[in-house]
Amino acid sequence: MNKMIKNDLTNIRVYYEDTDAGGVVYYANYLKFAERARTEFLRKLDINQSQLAKQHDIIFVVRDVDMQLLKPARLDDLLTIETVITAVSAASISMQQKIICQKQLINLINIKIISIRQNFKPVKIPAFIRDKITCA
Amino acid sequence: MNKMIKNDLTNIRVYYEDTDAGGVVYYANYLKFAERARTEFLRKLDINQSQLAKQHDIIFVVRDVDMQLLKPARLDDLLTIETVITAVSAASISMQQKIICQKQLINLINIKIISIRQNFKPVKIPAFIRDKITCA
Amino acid sequence: MNKMIKNDLTNIRVYYEDTDAGGVVYYANYLKFAERARTEFLRKLDINQSQLAKQHDIIFVVRDVDMQLLKPARLDDLLTIETVITAVSAASISMQQKIICQKQLINLINIKIISIRQNFKPVKIPAFIRDKITCA
Amino acid sequence: MNKMIKNDLTNIRVYYEDTDAGGVVYYANYLKFAERARTEFLRKLDINQSQLAKQHDIIFVVRDVDMQLLKPARLDDLLTIETVITAVSAASISMQQKIICQKQLINLINIKIISIRQNFKPVKIPAFIRDKITCA
Repeated sequence: MNKMIKNDLTNIRVYYEDTDAGGVVYYANYLKFAERARTEFLRKLDINQSQLAKQHDIIFVVRDVDMQLLKPARLDDLLTIETVITAVSAASISMQQKIICQKQLINLINIKIISIRQNFKPVKIPAFIRDKITCA
Repeated sequence: MNKMIKNDLTNIRVYYEDTDAGGVVYYANYLKFAERARTEFLRKLDINQSQLAKQHDIIFVVRDVDMQLLKPARLDDLLTIETVITAVSAASISMQQKIICQKQLINLINIKIISIRQNFKPVKIPAFIRDKITCA
Repeated sequence: MNKMIKNDLTNIRVYYEDTDAGGVVYYANYLKFAERARTEFLRKLDINQSQLAKQHDIIFVVRDVDMQLLKPARLDDLLTIETVITAVSAASISMQQKIICQKQLINLINIKIISIRQNFKPVKIPAFIRDKITCA
Repeated sequence: MNKMIKNDLTNIRVYYEDTDAGGVVYYANYLKFAERARTEFLRKLDINQSQLAKQHDIIFVVRDVDMQLLKPARLDDLLTIETVITAVSAASISMQQKIICQKQLINLINIKIISIRQNFKPVKIPAFIRDKITCA
């Protein structure tokens, strides 16, 4: 068993602000949904990003993102985002995020986030965060 | 007793997407929060905006908005929005919305929305909606 | 002659990101357009906001905004925003902004911005900024 | 010589709306910049997306996007986006977009857009569009 695999589910409602004149969710906004889901995932692991920045000078930023937009979401849809940690290295965390609408996978995101200082220099992920992410 | 007064509370979390380089919520984004709160309010009254558009050719749009930004909200803050209907006319609904953070009023919005067709012509609010909004 | 009256015109194109499923510009996004126009106005007066923050610990934030949404703007519309300074006090600047589309006034904004420190305490507008804003 | 290769440069200014509490451009917003650049590219080729939708029932939507965030952009930065068409198939167009800040590549986007009807069924790219994209 890979003890690093943790996952989380977050529900997100689609509002007018998320849609565009094509009648569907604007493509960049799925990345907002995904970031909310990652934030809630970390919050459940007792990792609060504004405290991390203030107390430990650690910020997580996205380094790479790959998104496949399979089907559109629309106004008032209720989306579920499944977030899974797929890899953890010294200074990066890789995740896969599936956005589901009415039991269909509509959007698939693979993302790599890295830990940096507020001066944007890379920094190793501290042990206390690594433990929260990787311990079952 | 004014039987038109209905109100609702919605909780909204502040994410990175909502903030700006000043370290606080970007001013326009409070209007996104307010629109989410109005939508949830209407949803609880069994008024679904995407169905209204499709089945009744009715869209509610904002005609006037007045916002006082009293204090800033920050990343990870949990906001509560209180929405109160303050007046209903033939083709408009007025609301007051209070955004509260840690028991302090941080933002006060007065807003007037009007009902229109998809061709943007004004239209009277249908009786079945008026009833849901005004009956206790 | 009121020598405080300065004004500026900025052109802004409507993209998909600005619109919503109603087929028009999402109401909060007019405030983004207005902020871009104010920023360009200040830039032409040689006031650069990121330098102000770094070198003088001065941030301008919106305290009050009143917006009337008269007509909708749509995808690909080219908007012109006229920004006029209407009053300057010790720690605030009031402006009126008119958004024009195809020679019609579609949106009217009255806004009051205040000058603060990065700790969000109010501060008097420095003389060198006041001079740039008020001298003809 | 591959006669399909066309490219375009667009300049984009970073405003407060684009940044987040980390002091840099919020990651999803680079996709807004990229979409503006693609829209202006198409406009220069005399392809107007709102006319395409109305007169030809053709919408271009993003199917896949891969983004590498190499360095952050900040408030007031002036970005240049270079957009190059890298492939055209029956119903898709692939592009590479480079976001440059002070002569440094800060963001690299590879994107595939597909042509659909307003009912979201795929449709072949019409000959008159293909000609505009592929003829030198």
